Amino acid sequence: LIMSKGTVVLAYSGGLDTSCILVWLKEQGYDVIAFLANIGQDEDFEAARKKAESLGAKKVFIEDLRSEFVEDFIWPSVQANAVYEDRYLLGTAVARPCIARQQVEIARKEGANFVSHGATGKGNDQIRFELTCYALYPEVKIIAPWRIPEFYNRFRGRTDLMEYAQKHGIPVPVTPKAPWSMDANLMHISYESGILENPKSRAPADLYLMTKNPEDSPNTPDDLEIEFKNVFVGSPCLSLSGKHGVGRIDIVENRFIGMKSRGIYETPGGTILLKAHLDIETFTMDKEVRRIKQGLGIKFSELIYNGFWYSPECEFVQHCINKSQENVEGKVQLSVFKGQVYILGRESSKSLYNEELVSMDVQGDYDPCDASGFIRINAVRLREHHRLQGFSSTKQ
Amino acid sequence: LIMSKGTVVLAYSGGLDTSCILVWLKEQGYDVIAFLANIGQDEDFEAARKKAESLGAKKVFIEDLRSEFVEDFIWPSVQANAVYEDRYLLGTAVARPCIARQQVEIARKEGANFVSHGATGKGNDQIRFELTCYALYPEVKIIAPWRIPEFYNRFRGRTDLMEYAQKHGIPVPVTPKAPWSMDANLMHISYESGILENPKSRAPADLYLMTKNPEDSPNTPDDLEIEFKNVFVGSPCLSLSGKHGVGRIDIVENRFIGMKSRGIYETPGGTILLKAHLDIETFTMDKEVRRIKQGLGIKFSELIYNGFWYSPECEFVQHCINKSQENVEGKVQLSVFKGQVYILGRESSKSLYNEELVSMDVQGDYDPCDASGFIRINAVRLREHHRLQGFSSTKQ
Amino acid sequence: LIMSKGTVVLAYSGGLDTSCILVWLKEQGYDVIAFLANIGQDEDFEAARKKAESLGAKKVFIEDLRSEFVEDFIWPSVQANAVYEDRYLLGTAVARPCIARQQVEIARKEGANFVSHGATGKGNDQIRFELTCYALYPEVKIIAPWRIPEFYNRFRGRTDLMEYAQKHGIPVPVTPKAPWSMDANLMHISYESGILENPKSRAPADLYLMTKNPEDSPNTPDDLEIEFKNVFVGSPCLSLSGKHGVGRIDIVENRFIGMKSRGIYETPGGTILLKAHLDIETFTMDKEVRRIKQGLGIKFSELIYNGFWYSPECEFVQHCINKSQENVEGKVQLSVFKGQVYILGRESSKSLYNEELVSMDVQGDYDPCDASGFIRINAVRLREHHRLQGFSSTKQ
Amino acid sequence: LIMSKGTVVLAYSGGLDTSCILVWLKEQGYDVIAFLANIGQDEDFEAARKKAESLGAKKVFIEDLRSEFVEDFIWPSVQANAVYEDRYLLGTAVARPCIARQQVEIARKEGANFVSHGATGKGNDQIRFELTCYALYPEVKIIAPWRIPEFYNRFRGRTDLMEYAQKHGIPVPVTPKAPWSMDANLMHISYESGILENPKSRAPADLYLMTKNPEDSPNTPDDLEIEFKNVFVGSPCLSLSGKHGVGRIDIVENRFIGMKSRGIYETPGGTILLKAHLDIETFTMDKEVRRIKQGLGIKFSELIYNGFWYSPECEFVQHCINKSQENVEGKVQLSVFKGQVYILGRESSKSLYNEELVSMDVQGDYDPCDASGFIRINAVRLREHHRLQGFSSTKQ
Repeated sequence: LIMSKGTVVLAYSGGLDTSCILVWLKEQGYDVIAFLANIGQDEDFEAARKKAESLGAKKVFIEDLRSEFVEDFIWPSVQANAVYEDRYLLGTAVARPCIARQQVEIARKEGANFVSHGATGKGNDQIRFELTCYALYPEVKIIAPWRIPEFYNRFRGRTDLMEYAQKHGIPVPVTPKAPWSMDANLMHISYESGILENPKSRAPADLYLMTKNPEDSPNTPDDLEIEFKNVFVGSPCLSLSGKHGVGRIDIVENRFIGMKSRGIYETPGGTILLKAHLDIETFTMDKEVRRIKQGLGIKFSELIYNGFWYSPECEFVQHCINKSQENVEGKVQLSVFKGQVYILGRESSKSLYNEELVSMDVQGDYDPCDASGFIRINAVRLREHHRLQGFSSTKQ
Repeated sequence: LIMSKGTVVLAYSGGLDTSCILVWLKEQGYDVIAFLANIGQDEDFEAARKKAESLGAKKVFIEDLRSEFVEDFIWPSVQANAVYEDRYLLGTAVARPCIARQQVEIARKEGANFVSHGATGKGNDQIRFELTCYALYPEVKIIAPWRIPEFYNRFRGRTDLMEYAQKHGIPVPVTPKAPWSMDANLMHISYESGILENPKSRAPADLYLMTKNPEDSPNTPDDLEIEFKNVFVGSPCLSLSGKHGVGRIDIVENRFIGMKSRGIYETPGGTILLKAHLDIETFTMDKEVRRIKQGLGIKFSELIYNGFWYSPECEFVQHCINKSQENVEGKVQLSVFKGQVYILGRESSKSLYNEELVSMDVQGDYDPCDASGFIRINAVRLREHHRLQGFSSTKQ
Repeated sequence: LIMSKGTVVLAYSGGLDTSCILVWLKEQGYDVIAFLANIGQDEDFEAARKKAESLGAKKVFIEDLRSEFVEDFIWPSVQANAVYEDRYLLGTAVARPCIARQQVEIARKEGANFVSHGATGKGNDQIRFELTCYALYPEVKIIAPWRIPEFYNRFRGRTDLMEYAQKHGIPVPVTPKAPWSMDANLMHISYESGILENPKSRAPADLYLMTKNPEDSPNTPDDLEIEFKNVFVGSPCLSLSGKHGVGRIDIVENRFIGMKSRGIYETPGGTILLKAHLDIETFTMDKEVRRIKQGLGIKFSELIYNGFWYSPECEFVQHCINKSQENVEGKVQLSVFKGQVYILGRESSKSLYNEELVSMDVQGDYDPCDASGFIRINAVRLREHHRLQGFSSTKQ
Repeated sequence: LIMSKGTVVLAYSGGLDTSCILVWLKEQGYDVIAFLANIGQDEDFEAARKKAESLGAKKVFIEDLRSEFVEDFIWPSVQANAVYEDRYLLGTAVARPCIARQQVEIARKEGANFVSHGATGKGNDQIRFELTCYALYPEVKIIAPWRIPEFYNRFRGRTDLMEYAQKHGIPVPVTPKAPWSMDANLMHISYESGILENPKSRAPADLYLMTKNPEDSPNTPDDLEIEFKNVFVGSPCLSLSGKHGVGRIDIVENRFIGMKSRGIYETPGGTILLKAHLDIETFTMDKEVRRIKQGLGIKFSELIYNGFWYSPECEFVQHCINKSQENVEGKVQLSVFKGQVYILGRESSKSLYNEELVSMDVQGDYDPCDASGFIRINAVRLREHHRLQGFSSTKQ
């Protein structure tokens, strides 16, 4: 009779890696609860359940987190215009705390002292998973096999995993693995590693699963209108975005642990939402509030990327951003075509846009003479600086 | 015999407005020097010279500023990834200090105490012109007719200008004016006012002069490679960008004077340069330097937009950004197609990208166990926070 | 019979300047309502009322704003640790919106279309007054005599005011004016202009009215304890601060309009509150929240200084800062002595300080080995940078 | 015959801890080079040399780093106005990279692959030491005994160290240890741990070694003048500062690893330099440059505190701050008395202070009417906001 070392809730994907981890954890003496989150990825969830059960999972939880993923994670990111390093829309990063929150919930409910995941030891996801776990379940113990020498020395490559699988009755994939890894959810798919590690090599055309190649996308644009309210009002119909090839990027980014890595992302709906939200926000938000909020949004993006969704500072920043959105309401008209999103117009009852005030044809409540004083006072400092510098010539 | 009130250097465009201003300034008793800057706009410069002379300009200066515009103004903006309010690439804003610098140079050389321009009293350009003038020529006196009641009350609309023109022998345009105003240079064209003042109304398809309608642009992408060095190495061949319809945006923005205004911009080459520079920069620049530099770039953009190119703080920020670019060198491969720019790959001898370090297949000089400590230490604070909060549930 | 031009609410101080303005405004054809705010300055308010009435004020409002000044203006500034340019505690700046808010309230109630004040044309106070007025009463018309040529050309110095006063039966001060100007309220007194304009000249020892010269202050410290809650809990007993000579500074600062000016301030109680609040805040607030809040506090300080108390961005920042203060509660023990404040200790039920965790004697819930990983991961980037730089020597 | 594991350069203090570490490292099979930096602490360096030799150090390096500590580390911090979390002047933090730089230099010269130190596993100093080592000597291996279970489990308290010392012929201190730990250099002394770990308990009066108790300090102030140039011009005579009890603080701060800790610091000369530098900087630096530089200074302080002196971002920030100091030159007159520093006046040939411009008595090159326009344009946005809000009352 072997004493169990305890129960571990494993973030299970149904794939080769986490299947091997499931069995390996059992080998190590743990009771394993498999947890698979449905966040919109393309997956046969029932097959995954059966697979986990057949591998000896004590329990299997498959939870549909799609609506909370959209409402609690994607929507705040849209409100923040969250973009990491000017380009990445954080599709994987926002999914991690959503999954880990549920994983911790299960661990607490099931009295499990351990959680485990299949994230690698060089990436961001391990951090995002674990910081969420520690934040929400501080006493939890984390088993990260890809950071445990016994594990990673045993499984040095896919071949080792395949062998182990065959030996332990783990079904092995029949189709060959793509020469890169990917992560998918309803918001985006990311591709990295393998042949993509060479930052110069062009991504193969058949890599993309979520968006059409713009060259093959429809030859006529589709127009749509997105309405924003300051609370989430349902996922707008964004099926057009993938069809039109919107949201592909190929970037090198800085991981939290200080490495540069190359990632290819497709975020069709998120890209449209970002562009539309940016537009309605500038239309309705005061200029100086916008400036401060822009800084907070950048901070928020870094926090999400680095795994600090559940942190005092992220909670704080989210609260502030939330406040900024009070009047961000209205409709944006846009057109999608061949990978691009074009804003066509916008309207809002909360807008600070004042057509009469800005008009070149009517004066409105504005005295142009005021501008002279405004400019001259702004120049006081510049003229003083010049006086001190004593420029002899205007060209430097 | 009438005494001259002095000499004024007028930023002359050759159009109806500044032609009327030229004559009006003479009427007011000034000697007028007409100055027309060639910054790449589509203009018959010789015709403009003759027109100015015929209207009584004491002298006419037509100066080719194209190369200094690119080197001294566009290039630093590219290095800064300068974008105002997340979208506007500042094509008009960077041109103003370039023109005004030359205008001041002429004023000094010609002993003129006055400068004048045709910018309106509600816009940003008046500020950009005048702050540059005050910064570089603090004693200068500025005549801004559109802020002088005698002028703007006399010329309440285009009809008044046309009448005045006919009365004073100013050639009037034969083609009807477009129902919006525009500003063009080699980097971009902006469109605003008139029918565009309604933020909801869609811009007419025939408005764009610099870029093809993506629907009519080539059906096959063009690939190109852009090489960056940390000094300007010549304007890359960007003729492809307009052909492929790159760089159109329709935005509402916040003017310095606190109004929201709607602008439509096309910045074909600048858009490609921005995307390529962003890519090579992230590839070669340290993560934390990038973060600080990103903040400085946003500041720089606001300064440019608001007209503070020649200011102590802009000089300071430019110096800092310049320092950050020391290793930003390399080549970016990209593809342009139907209004969109796709980064395909990049390479650099200065890159901080370490393919072995980041590889999922080899371990490199990296111990995955270190990540456990890294995560646990980052969690110290989060666990403390949780302890204080005493969350009863993980779901808020 | 003369038609009144309308009613003006004048911010009246009881002094020579605003008395002359009162009479001058009547001369110009206005009905004048005198408004004098009691914000804790040393003033004979009843004498001021009689004076204003005798000068022909249609009505006189003397309003005790002390408690709203403390609660609505000083307290939020303490929470923000508001300090302008690292030194100035904003004692005058926070009083202006408090006064102007009431002035506007009276103007609205009395149906007055005009407000007026005696602030100079070079200072910050004109801006603080007027931005508040425009923000809260956008249609108001402002009469700023010191910016009206007829006024300032007539009153070129104190002698002109004295003459005018004698001619119009305005009581003239019997004691000679101090060779500087001052502004006082319950929080502070500022001194500037006159002989203080020379930034090198030492302020006279008899200038200070609110604090004892530390050389003459008690030779033994007084200890006190300040308790903070996240709502305002009454003005703590700070009478000790002036007695001990706390809060004197002599600085050069940058005015909003771009000039440098020299000011001498004494802020006895505010200085103690700032130091105590800083201490309890760091004791109870998460490190990263603190960092973000620090930036917002600096922004808040600039907004207050520049007169933007009533602005969308200040409202926004105040909301954010407010959120950050939720757990900022506890007691700070301190000692005041000879101009200095010494923090002695602090305690709080909301503190994130964990004596066991930080102890060098016990290990607590902390594994020192984690720090190795933390450091090594933080070094990944530094080592990469070094690799690229290829330093041959460690000394630069 | 035992093979050496290699050579380790130990940062040796001469005290009990690092003496035990020296012997323990030898026990573990290393050759030990003892390195003791003279950064101005009160130490019998020759006695320490003999002690290290007697304990079996292969070599002993005692290096006088005082002038490079002042020039390369303290001076840039003064220029940055470096203060961590609004209060701590970073006296220990700036010393660590100075010491570690030399340690690495010796390790390289002596062909040592290892460095070691006696810093604890919960503090900041381990990080500051090691990040410097990794940055400047990426291949180095670090031995941090207080993070090695064999070491810290063996030496659980001072008694264990004393026993080990007696057993191994390590001279034990004859005077009892103060119930706190301290770190001293020419700039400051820090005190923490032991009885100070209770954040409420008042620090004993006899703790301070560098400054007089203000109650016992001279009863008359001393005046002094400090001259700044934009290069370091020698350590000003600051002996007065300790005598007058300047620079004592008692704070709780946030360590990099996420704990709050209580520290007591005395930084007499540094406090005066900070105050004087702040004054001359605001006097000579443009307002907007100052604002940007203030942000960079805060960043710089965090970097120093966290141990990133030798990092790409710190190098970058230092370069920027350096640029900002170009005109920061002049003399500051001040007075020190009973723990407090009073600025009395300042002068500079590079000042942007314009006495005529700011004067209330003369108009200078300034038209007060300009301020009306300035204010009204600044109000455009505020009035628009009000229009949207439709406040019914001015009091919220």
